[in-house]
Amino acid sequence: MKVIVIGGNGTIGRAVVEELGQRHDIVSVGQSSGELRVDMTRPESVQQLFRKTGPVDAVVVAAGKLHFGALAELTAEQLAVGLQDKLMGQVNIALAAQHHLRDGGSITLTSGIVSDEPIRFGVNATMVNAAVDGFVRAAAIELSRGLRINAVSPNVLVESMPAYGPYFLGFEPVTAARTAKAYSRSVDGLQTGQVYRVW
Amino acid sequence: MKVIVIGGNGTIGRAVVEELGQRHDIVSVGQSSGELRVDMTRPESVQQLFRKTGPVDAVVVAAGKLHFGALAELTAEQLAVGLQDKLMGQVNIALAAQHHLRDGGSITLTSGIVSDEPIRFGVNATMVNAAVDGFVRAAAIELSRGLRINAVSPNVLVESMPAYGPYFLGFEPVTAARTAKAYSRSVDGLQTGQVYRVW
Ligand SMILES: NC(=O)c1ccc[n+]([C@@H]2O[C@H](COP(=O)([O-])OP(=O)(O)OC[C@H]3O[C@@H](n4cnc5c(N)ncnc54)[C@H](OP(=O)(O)O)[C@@H]3O)[C@@H](O)[C@H]2O)c1
Ligand SMILES: NC(=O)c1ccc[n+]([C@@H]2O[C@H](COP(=O)([O-])OP(=O)(O)OC[C@H]3O[C@@H](n4cnc5c(N)ncnc54)[C@H](OP(=O)(O)O)[C@@H]3O)[C@@H](O)[C@H]2O)c1
Repeated sequence: MKVIVIGGNGTIGRAVVEELGQRHDIVSVGQSSGELRVDMTRPESVQQLFRKTGPVDAVVVAAGKLHFGALAELTAEQLAVGLQDKLMGQVNIALAAQHHLRDGGSITLTSGIVSDEPIRFGVNATMVNAAVDGFVRAAAIELSRGLRINAVSPNVLVESMPAYGPYFLGFEPVTAARTAKAYSRSVDGLQTGQVYRVW
Repeated sequence: MKVIVIGGNGTIGRAVVEELGQRHDIVSVGQSSGELRVDMTRPESVQQLFRKTGPVDAVVVAAGKLHFGALAELTAEQLAVGLQDKLMGQVNIALAAQHHLRDGGSITLTSGIVSDEPIRFGVNATMVNAAVDGFVRAAAIELSRGLRINAVSPNVLVESMPAYGPYFLGFEPVTAARTAKAYSRSVDGLQTGQVYRVW
């Protein structure tokens, strides 16, 4: 299979490339690195990406920024970070991918544990991750040609504890390698509309 | 209690005003009707609203537009309808309300059954309703002074079947009067972070 991994140079993306690269042809895509470049927040940039890739069998997204900050001081602009980047960035990829995937192909997006387990400063993360999971549930029933879509919802990563540890006290971090297996369940499996919780 | 009902002239809002008006002082707010006016999609307009109301005990929102349309043709602009109006409109109200509610006061937002039960043409509705429910889960744990926040997630309304019926074949419509009782559970009760499902 030809598999596009957007965010393939990131903490999760590198592990996904390693896991899926064992049996598939991977095109690693990033904003400032990778074989191909895209800014997933811009629909025109996403269209350009798929013109370059041609038909593909699977699209994985492991990218997306969020704002972390106290509810008492949150602004609409801060919440727009996650809505425009992590939510609409991934949605832009999915909307375009449905027209460039071969029959039976799959889309796999990334949400996160904070959708279900809110944390201090995590309002943007919870609303955006919940929206990503929701998008997947709804898109799954409308996709044609046997196309599938799932989300992977990781716990905080072992590899990210130096940066995110203080937000996730008491959470049990998972390795990027273990998280990558959930992407394989989506790409190599047959389910659709699922949220694979790695927690 | 002094209760602000945004969308108080709508299908759901009118029933909420009738239910809560039996025991509370209601200020009914709309975009083009009501005692006070607000455009909840504009944070400045929301600030102005709360300068006019002064301190309040409960804020209810029963408003918010969504886009309905086929996944195969969805655009980022169409999805922005629900994100800007139903999601960020309600979030703008909640962010401002936390600073104008008396201790122990409550915020009640509106999502909908499509968050959990996707329908044809419903991608925007599912992602937005799921994000509203997520916002409520996350905001609830950060609110101070005993403030509370919940969502009501109605099924399609009996009163809306002439308009929405074709989208909701097989769903069991609920009356606005029954739906209004869920808003009372939030306003008159003590729970927080809940999604009251009227289905
Ligand atoms: N790390 C965790 O603990 C954790 C836990 C749960 C969920 N998640 C979620 O998993 C996703 C990836 O996280 P991560 O920690 O692996 O991130 P990361 O290490 O920061 O990597 C992000 C990757 O995404 C790419 N990227 C960023 N913005 C982009 C854009 N606008 N268009 C296209 N590509 C873009 C980057 O490309 P370049 O490198 O080329 O700039 C990079 O390869 C995020 O959505 C995050 O919320 C992470
Ligand atoms: N009806 C259903 O079957 C159903 C089912 C599940 C969920 N819901 C949700 O419940 C909410 C209310 O639905 P509804 O059917 O009662 O709606 P509706 O009858 O169309 O009433 C909407 C109300 O919201 C006000 N409004 C609209 N845009 C506004 C804005 N930008 N700022 C402030 N106020 C605004 C309107 O004010 P004016 O009248 O003054 O213009 C009106 O009073 C929506 O979020 C909807 O998605 C509805």
